[in-house]
Amino acid sequence: MSLLVFGTVAYDGITTPSGSVDRVLGGAATHFALAASFFTDVRIVSVVGEDFSAEDEAVLTARGIDTAGIERAAGKSFFWRGEYEDLNQATTLDTQLNVLATFAPKIPPQYLDSDFLFLANIDPALQLQVRRQMAAARLVCGDTMNYWIGAHRANLQPVLRELDVLLINDGEAKMLAGETNLVLAANRILAMGPRALIIKHGEFGATAFFGEGSFGAAGTNALPFRAPALPLREVVDPTGAGDSFAGGFYGYLASQPQLTAAAFRTAMFYGSVMGSFAVEKFGTERMQTLTRQQIDARFQLFRELTHLEP
Amino acid sequence: MSLLVFGTVAYDGITTPSGSVDRVLGGAATHFALAASFFTDVRIVSVVGEDFSAEDEAVLTARGIDTAGIERAAGKSFFWRGEYEDLNQATTLDTQLNVLATFAPKIPPQYLDSDFLFLANIDPALQLQVRRQMAAARLVCGDTMNYWIGAHRANLQPVLRELDVLLINDGEAKMLAGETNLVLAANRILAMGPRALIIKHGEFGATAFFGEGSFGAAGTNALPFRAPALPLREVVDPTGAGDSFAGGFYGYLASQPQLTAAAFRTAMFYGSVMGSFAVEKFGTERMQTLTRQQIDARFQLFRELTHLEP
Repeated sequence: MSLLVFGTVAYDGITTPSGSVDRVLGGAATHFALAASFFTDVRIVSVVGEDFSAEDEAVLTARGIDTAGIERAAGKSFFWRGEYEDLNQATTLDTQLNVLATFAPKIPPQYLDSDFLFLANIDPALQLQVRRQMAAARLVCGDTMNYWIGAHRANLQPVLRELDVLLINDGEAKMLAGETNLVLAANRILAMGPRALIIKHGEFGATAFFGEGSFGAAGTNALPFRAPALPLREVVDPTGAGDSFAGGFYGYLASQPQLTAAAFRTAMFYGSVMGSFAVEKFGTERMQTLTRQQIDARFQLFRELTHLEP
Repeated sequence: MSLLVFGTVAYDGITTPSGSVDRVLGGAATHFALAASFFTDVRIVSVVGEDFSAEDEAVLTARGIDTAGIERAAGKSFFWRGEYEDLNQATTLDTQLNVLATFAPKIPPQYLDSDFLFLANIDPALQLQVRRQMAAARLVCGDTMNYWIGAHRANLQPVLRELDVLLINDGEAKMLAGETNLVLAANRILAMGPRALIIKHGEFGATAFFGEGSFGAAGTNALPFRAPALPLREVVDPTGAGDSFAGGFYGYLASQPQLTAAAFRTAMFYGSVMGSFAVEKFGTERMQTLTRQQIDARFQLFRELTHLEP
């Protein structure tokens, strides 16, 4: 089934304790699409500038990703520079919106039949424009970040009402809910619209919370689900880990014949797996050499990590 | 099989966002023993003062715990007062060592046949004295805390060399190892002596790391194991959560015919289960009404929490 991702395709400058890169292919849609491409057909809607190179586009097309929806605009591509001292939190050193500043996304006609829509982290006003154009999507998942939660909450609210699954991290969940207890925060966020919520805990995995009846959940206090993360010896670059989690999760889900509770759980494990690969190298580097065989071997490791004999 | 725990039996004054208690039964050995008592025979070696009440002793004996090894000394029992603003970290407001200041632990002769020894969090010099008297123990597990890691490291080192399993939390592990990456920290700590290490992550569960060949682990990079924790709607009092985890873990392990990798994993889940009950009420209150049936029902919930269909 086809999965359409809307979000940024960009260039990043990144400094971590492991080193530094000046300008590498990045952006939420890029990381998401690469991770999802191991599971299903992926189409990107985004915008880049005249500086977007054929070599970088080939990173996407080599993984079978349809890039026809990436608009070319006059000017330069979105650029972000950040530094990680603590690997859980980036400090933004520079943000150049460039072509993103005037972007009005238009879904190409041949994309309108996409069953699965992912609204990657970007201005929620743009997320809503895309959602409106994709009225026929069977499932809509999305991401956001602290900046939009804080300064653009009024625009974010109608997006939340449109989502089947929202994926955010611990800090964002607490900020969005105004509540530090994770269970209470999850309940408040579910009341804002999403049918299910995945809260990502970095090296501690991710927890899914379900609204009543969503994805096979029963009762008002449906049991959450937790996917582990593999403790890693080295995190080279956390940039895109959350997008790669989302790509693994949603790519796997889109590849399944039915959206069952079991499929949702397995998808969470694949999300954790893809996040764990993403951080092993800078930018998109690890995804470029990754194989489905390596993915499935790590999936087995993750199962083993929490598996009890029956 | 008999499990001997050495540690504090004390009174606590506790303030949390849920309320406050002036003086309740506490101490690491108390919390450990109560949790372990649901799985195996438990004996305590400790010291209390003349203020230790028959009613509080009955909390232990009602659970079948052997209290003959709790020495009565002139003076008052150990007293701790603390406050939790953030539920992950207590601020100590008052510590009165009282009878603990001059304590020289002596193992009663009838306890010397205990197969399993737990050295709860206390001065490592005392932990070592007890270890020396219990030379025949089949398995020795222990706990410590930031105070001993910082100011008494020379005394802690010989204790670490005696341990089969060390149980500590994230912050303590990073402090002990002088390393913030969890995998590298675990490797450094395993090199200090323990055959296995359980690092507790609070609401995110706990991870076990294994030295080569320990508990069925194969190879120098034996796969760790992660037990989840149930996301809780309310944490009333975190005091004793770690001790209760240790009691559930070790109590279950001591009840098993063989110390296999599978038994170790199941024990970790029971540890998480007992920790999750402990925080539901102040002090020892929840343990006093808990049943094995409730424990096993929650154990099934924890399995379900991370379970994938085969």
